[in-house]
Amino acid sequence: MKKGIDNSKILDAIKTALPLENKFVSLHEPRFEGNEWTYVKECLDTGWVSSVGKFVDLFEEKLAEYTGVKRAVAVVNGTAALHICLTLVGVEPGDEVLAPAMTFVATANAITYCRAVPHFVDGEEKTLGTDPYKLGDYLKEIADVRLEGCFNRLTGRRIKAVVPMHTFGHPVDLDPLVEISERYKLELVEDAAESLGSYYKGMHTGNWGKVSALSFNGNKVITTGGGGAILTNDESLGKLAKHITTTAKIPHRWAFYHDMVGYNYRLPNINAALGCAQLEQLPGFITRKRALAERYREVFGQIEGVTFFAEPDFARSNYWLNAILLDKDFSGERDNFLEMANSAGVMTRPAWTLMHKLPMFSTCPRMNLDVAERLETCLINIPSSSFLGGLHE
Amino acid sequence: MKKGIDNSKILDAIKTALPLENKFVSLHEPRFEGNEWTYVKECLDTGWVSSVGKFVDLFEEKLAEYTGVKRAVAVVNGTAALHICLTLVGVEPGDEVLAPAMTFVATANAITYCRAVPHFVDGEEKTLGTDPYKLGDYLKEIADVRLEGCFNRLTGRRIKAVVPMHTFGHPVDLDPLVEISERYKLELVEDAAESLGSYYKGMHTGNWGKVSALSFNGNKVITTGGGGAILTNDESLGKLAKHITTTAKIPHRWAFYHDMVGYNYRLPNINAALGCAQLEQLPGFITRKRALAERYREVFGQIEGVTFFAEPDFARSNYWLNAILLDKDFSGERDNFLEMANSAGVMTRPAWTLMHKLPMFSTCPRMNLDVAERLETCLINIPSSSFLGGLHE
Repeated sequence: MKKGIDNSKILDAIKTALPLENKFVSLHEPRFEGNEWTYVKECLDTGWVSSVGKFVDLFEEKLAEYTGVKRAVAVVNGTAALHICLTLVGVEPGDEVLAPAMTFVATANAITYCRAVPHFVDGEEKTLGTDPYKLGDYLKEIADVRLEGCFNRLTGRRIKAVVPMHTFGHPVDLDPLVEISERYKLELVEDAAESLGSYYKGMHTGNWGKVSALSFNGNKVITTGGGGAILTNDESLGKLAKHITTTAKIPHRWAFYHDMVGYNYRLPNINAALGCAQLEQLPGFITRKRALAERYREVFGQIEGVTFFAEPDFARSNYWLNAILLDKDFSGERDNFLEMANSAGVMTRPAWTLMHKLPMFSTCPRMNLDVAERLETCLINIPSSSFLGGLHE
Repeated sequence: MKKGIDNSKILDAIKTALPLENKFVSLHEPRFEGNEWTYVKECLDTGWVSSVGKFVDLFEEKLAEYTGVKRAVAVVNGTAALHICLTLVGVEPGDEVLAPAMTFVATANAITYCRAVPHFVDGEEKTLGTDPYKLGDYLKEIADVRLEGCFNRLTGRRIKAVVPMHTFGHPVDLDPLVEISERYKLELVEDAAESLGSYYKGMHTGNWGKVSALSFNGNKVITTGGGGAILTNDESLGKLAKHITTTAKIPHRWAFYHDMVGYNYRLPNINAALGCAQLEQLPGFITRKRALAERYREVFGQIEGVTFFAEPDFARSNYWLNAILLDKDFSGERDNFLEMANSAGVMTRPAWTLMHKLPMFSTCPRMNLDVAERLETCLINIPSSSFLGGLHE
């Protein structure tokens, strides 16, 4: 075993946790076993499929209720939600925004939509997300706090916000991050695209950011086809979020008057209908996903050279995408394993290419990224659909 | 009759054309009487509701076939389509883009998303859209054509593109506009959001722009809930349009690598399913809409003080939204008529507030806008749903 890792043992471990034989297993598939048909059919029967309709309002209400925020605004996808979150906290052209190096590209793209510059920060092994202590040490070195905000001494640019991302549904350590954002006058925006159903110290993610973004893409815990939401506990920001995402039109019986540059980021009613039905099933999805994670944890406890990633002790995670980490000595095996598993019909994938390795972000400022670099080489996502967790019940 | 117009006669005329009694009549409602439910159900049954799926591909193929372009790329809405069209023709921050003063706000908003400046141009009574001859005269006055492109002598900014919009489905006079765009080195982008099913001199709108934008919002000729498309006859631009609207990800079995800043503008498969079914019914919708327009034309031929707007002689229009124009003497009656008709359950609306009258565009450059100003005071849209045209059949 010293010479290499036994890839087939890892694959067998996954198969043990998944009681399926000789079948293609995808990474994450949605299930529509509730009121999806009923609600979608209602849209078609009544003709209310588009940007206004009762399911949009209902979905927003139910999302706010579930996550415990004061206002949820449904939008067309998670990227749009992030773009508006950054706009709402005042990110301006030329600002820098602190964001994880290990994230889906939407986090960094949304920053560029504001003509701001992503500034990449490192993660920690405990959460896979932003390391607040390492970030604090780094800001001590490079940041100047002035009356007008926080400035990067090296680039001269204002650092306006910090965007932690709850990787694969595991919450970052929010308390110290909130403390740092206050100390450095940074707006906190949670990229909660992956963490619907995940809690930090008993409260749902998305409650710490001034505004936060959710995603309901097809591969997420619940899906609306494509969709997202903006969460906030600030009612005036919530109102503004609704206004700016619906073309900033002033309500009137017939006149078309818009009082600012707005966006057509409305979630269509037919997609919201799907969302309402999915949201009803979310508690069950989370139970099954956590059951699957628990089976993975048990199985991988027996396998040398690999660790199953478990939720941090302060968190209750949705385990959106389960992850295993190859031990340092074996991380060179990652691609061999991916090749073997995917060829065998068990879908697995690595972490996203780190943001600073993509050509459009290669010259962006960044701190030392040792942990993210290490995680990139050794992390593998394994099948995580909620229905896989229910088969043992 | 000299003292004023007889609003109740106009309302009666509308009701005569619409064989409905004592019933609320909306401006434009979709109808789902084809394969909508079958296709949407297939998405739910198979789990393919999101950003990849057979209906996205099929919808793109069928759209290209119907409009006669080489490539159609389905996106999340018409605004997103316009944004990408402008990006693809090379509109850059600080450029000016010529756009109609009388349009839905999306045309101007999309220009600002590129950090470019809308430059408003006048319309003509014949098409309700951009007047190519007046534009030509104006450019002769203010534009310098250099090797690097066209420059506005007054602002010093480059004028990169011209975006005509086919108002309510009526094509602008494209031939002279193409000639002017070539003479002034302007990229031509057709805002064809309202003109699916409309032809200019026998060819479908969207074939003259280097790239063109369609919309399938809930109030359009066909709907996908929310949706849009980019049309082009340039295959490499079409390929780039697909790439940039799908996060610019390089295809790979597992790796996440993106080679440029992209957008999450994908149309979900469930919305494309709706689109496929709607597209099958489009020829019938157009027939019924044209029949309704013909009835309106006949009925309004008898009414003093008001003219039904008929397609220009070079065009075959979809008559997306029917429009009547109050004679000059009576345009002060517009709001009284709107009040009366809407209170009576017959939905009517004025033209959009002209773009330069919105606060965020009030300082943008503009030419003399006499025709648009006049149209704004006297134009009224009247009920136009396709099914209203079928009731006499």
